[in-house]
Amino acid sequence: MKRLITILTTVLCIAGISATAQVKEDFVPAPNVQAGKQYPQVNSERCVRVRVVAPEAKSVKLDIGGVKYDLRKDAEGVWIGESAPQDEGFHYYQLNIDGADVPDPSSLYYYGASRWGSGVDVPAADQDFYAVKNVPQGQMREIYYWSEVNQAMRHCFVYTPAEYDLNPTKRYPVLYLQHGGGEDEHGWPQQGHTAQIMDNLLAEGKAVPFIIVMDNGSWTMPRPAAPAPAAAPAPQAQRPQAPQGQRPQGGGFAMPANWADGIANTFIKDLIPMIDSRFRTIPDAAHRAMAGLSMGGMQTKSITVAHPEVFSSLGIFSGGTITVDDTKNNPEFARTLKLVFVSFGSRELENRAPGFGDGTDPREETEALKASGVDAHFYVSPGTAHEWQSWRRALYQFAQLLFR
Amino acid sequence: MKRLITILTTVLCIAGISATAQVKEDFVPAPNVQAGKQYPQVNSERCVRVRVVAPEAKSVKLDIGGVKYDLRKDAEGVWIGESAPQDEGFHYYQLNIDGADVPDPSSLYYYGASRWGSGVDVPAADQDFYAVKNVPQGQMREIYYWSEVNQAMRHCFVYTPAEYDLNPTKRYPVLYLQHGGGEDEHGWPQQGHTAQIMDNLLAEGKAVPFIIVMDNGSWTMPRPAAPAPAAAPAPQAQRPQAPQGQRPQGGGFAMPANWADGIANTFIKDLIPMIDSRFRTIPDAAHRAMAGLSMGGMQTKSITVAHPEVFSSLGIFSGGTITVDDTKNNPEFARTLKLVFVSFGSRELENRAPGFGDGTDPREETEALKASGVDAHFYVSPGTAHEWQSWRRALYQFAQLLFR
Repeated sequence: MKRLITILTTVLCIAGISATAQVKEDFVPAPNVQAGKQYPQVNSERCVRVRVVAPEAKSVKLDIGGVKYDLRKDAEGVWIGESAPQDEGFHYYQLNIDGADVPDPSSLYYYGASRWGSGVDVPAADQDFYAVKNVPQGQMREIYYWSEVNQAMRHCFVYTPAEYDLNPTKRYPVLYLQHGGGEDEHGWPQQGHTAQIMDNLLAEGKAVPFIIVMDNGSWTMPRPAAPAPAAAPAPQAQRPQAPQGQRPQGGGFAMPANWADGIANTFIKDLIPMIDSRFRTIPDAAHRAMAGLSMGGMQTKSITVAHPEVFSSLGIFSGGTITVDDTKNNPEFARTLKLVFVSFGSRELENRAPGFGDGTDPREETEALKASGVDAHFYVSPGTAHEWQSWRRALYQFAQLLFR
Repeated sequence: MKRLITILTTVLCIAGISATAQVKEDFVPAPNVQAGKQYPQVNSERCVRVRVVAPEAKSVKLDIGGVKYDLRKDAEGVWIGESAPQDEGFHYYQLNIDGADVPDPSSLYYYGASRWGSGVDVPAADQDFYAVKNVPQGQMREIYYWSEVNQAMRHCFVYTPAEYDLNPTKRYPVLYLQHGGGEDEHGWPQQGHTAQIMDNLLAEGKAVPFIIVMDNGSWTMPRPAAPAPAAAPAPQAQRPQAPQGQRPQGGGFAMPANWADGIANTFIKDLIPMIDSRFRTIPDAAHRAMAGLSMGGMQTKSITVAHPEVFSSLGIFSGGTITVDDTKNNPEFARTLKLVFVSFGSRELENRAPGFGDGTDPREETEALKASGVDAHFYVSPGTAHEWQSWRRALYQFAQLLFR
């Protein structure tokens, strides 16, 4: 029945593209429109409506969820149109104006799909858990640090719980939380609402306070020097360092073949010592966890299995599993392992979507791991795919289990 | 002579729009392009070159510095073109594709001109002072707080110097630093490179360490409730709070007629008490300063003159002046005033540009103030207008004078 309703709604929305009368007219601005802007909008069927002024354009499309939807032009040269129903939560999208893929000028911008571009948040029934609320507020701190491994300044975000500054001698466990391919360290603070999820959990006493470090999942060799304008210092004078401003160059999928070693070295030789020196951490494996989504989940598995002296708990969100063989083949990892959390969006399990892992059944693998004596947990995000709502929910669940 | 060179360069660049041969071909990617992107570029004449793929477009323009430059289309549908020489430093811009004003898909995005849009940084001879360098790093902290005055969650950034976390009992003075009209609290952290300017000054021993608070200059009444989609909790359940994610809705110019009172109340009743409770501040007027650019400078003057019990030092960047009459008419302000800093871009003084103030000569006014016994300073940013390079330099100068 639910499936039937979805099909009917899809038909309605798509029909709406050619005849607005047929789309449910209860659109409201998405929660993440720009200040003073009214679009993108979402209706109760979770169709996304965009609007753009392009008087001389021949064709304008909304490109979301891998589908391009034609917009309609009115007499004033304003283009408007809707998508089919989207899953609850966050979706990257773009506009196509006469063949040019461009951001929607009225949306907010996020780093994903290997570029800064538009994103729309479809209100979710459970959105309260990541809403900004009047509860004790933690801080999302932006940090630059020198990496010997990368021979460059790197950039990360560090979440500290509200009580951190009020307990100047207390030390905290640390979760290292990684983004997915084509994304960067802005993903968890922005699309993921990490600070809001943790502040709300802590306000309800559902989690113990810990620090969260969100770094870039790419390992970059120092860039070659570029030719410099004569009139000014060479830009490459800043290239080996993080680019200026709040938006350092992200990594995404563009990384060397040996990225796994590169990231492991970056974490173990540069990032973790920096965090343990600048923050009041409990600097041992028992109080250190790593988790990540998709590519970040694969990094989490490769690093935590190889470095039981550094990490004792891990979470893999839409990025594979930990198997009984992983523990059999790595006795020291098995000996010190405290917590394993594996999650997927329900549509990933239905569709065997990318990020599903090695083809085995992750639920069975996790159950087997649990049966072998490991504190293993499997979570499925209902009605979502390989997308941020699955990962917001995964963090919400995982954070309640960590460092107990 | 300098003027002649500028004119000649302008001619060269504009000629370059129709014949590339005539523009100096030493373009390199701007310091703030997106990861892996090669545009926008800048050459040694400070012309900005953009590139966008728009195969079916009839017309594509680069809109920068109030001028629209036609781009050229090649056989593959790639449009490319250059602007006339720009001042050193940061400039907002956009593309116009068949009548649609859109962000450049390969630039980074900044909040200004009352929207998130493209920005390009033209390398400056003095750009080293705001570069990310391997020096002790402060932190740029993102904070949400409840405002009784606004009946809403508000959002600000707080810079803490590198030594802050290493001296758990030391208390620090605070500078409240405001953005301009059409901008928001992201302006100083992003376009302004506040953290880099302070980290570099402190590393060179040119400033005393202090906290910097960057809040939103708008005062907003709680928004009316919007109709809600049936299928999900009403978005307005989050509207009275800051929007989700890292990009709360900025204020810009859209503010009530009584914004001055609104901002003063927000600062004095909500923001300053919150900062004094969450950070190790020296909570008295002698250790509290306010500064701002353009509209933020006007806010700084109105608030500091009216509240000598709260602030004792102030900076006005391209936003007017403090006159001898201001001190004569406000004896308590005059009695406690410790430092006045007034600055403009040289082109503003030449052109009497917006933000110049009340029509009087700010240099003469500041000299008169100094002659009257006030520790007053006047600074002119060479070769820049009402733009961020003027304000980066103003902060760099002002920070060296503060809290001495």
